[in-house]
Amino acid sequence: MTEKIGILAIGHGSRLPYNNQVVSEIADMIAKKHPEFVIRSGFMEMSTPSVEEAMLSFAGTGVTKIAAVPVFLASGVHITKDIPEILKLDPETKQGKVKLDGREVTIVYGKPLGSDELIAELIFKRAQEVF
Amino acid sequence: MTEKIGILAIGHGSRLPYNNQVVSEIADMIAKKHPEFVIRSGFMEMSTPSVEEAMLSFAGTGVTKIAAVPVFLASGVHITKDIPEILKLDPETKQGKVKLDGREVTIVYGKPLGSDELIAELIFKRAQEVF
Repeated sequence: MTEKIGILAIGHGSRLPYNNQVVSEIADMIAKKHPEFVIRSGFMEMSTPSVEEAMLSFAGTGVTKIAAVPVFLASGVHITKDIPEILKLDPETKQGKVKLDGREVTIVYGKPLGSDELIAELIFKRAQEVF
Repeated sequence: MTEKIGILAIGHGSRLPYNNQVVSEIADMIAKKHPEFVIRSGFMEMSTPSVEEAMLSFAGTGVTKIAAVPVFLASGVHITKDIPEILKLDPETKQGKVKLDGREVTIVYGKPLGSDELIAELIFKRAQEVF
């Protein structure tokens, strides 16, 4: 069976609109560039859809595996504890399951952005915009 | 006079080491790729050096302008209020001044990462690493 991959972009969530906007816009960019993947976004707290709601919204898409990726800059308690708990990941394997359309779909868990040349390039671009 | 530009990468700071590591590593990447710029990193709270300490560490480098760029994903109160207050930016112009080596050096203020194709590319890479 060919895998059909879903990507869930997980944002922190905020009372202000900015975090929600950034995460949703990034999800749209990925969806546009990679139409063979099914992209959703969900939020840990304060914004909607919640992570659980976003996960269930993969129903009907035929995804066979979902990569949940935190749209967070760095690791921390949200990454190591809170989000794995929401996703009910196995603490050993860092994998989980969600039931969609009567099938069990595997959830795998990605790293946050971290230090990467792409972030360095973007920070330099943000500096260039103002000097 | 030719401008010599400094870039101050401003992190949130954290009791955990991750935020500090990511911001410092990103600053190192920028410094390596753009040796004609003077790069420093500083933290809003909890980590060292503080933003003020990092700003003063441009002394002796000959910078004529400093771009302060928040290494934050999205805007919010830290971006619109807390960091501008630490940097004593003019609320109208979003610019400030710092006295270094007896000269007044202009501070300009960059945007946070925001939604950008570079972030979308990195989130997709983080998904690819696990599916």
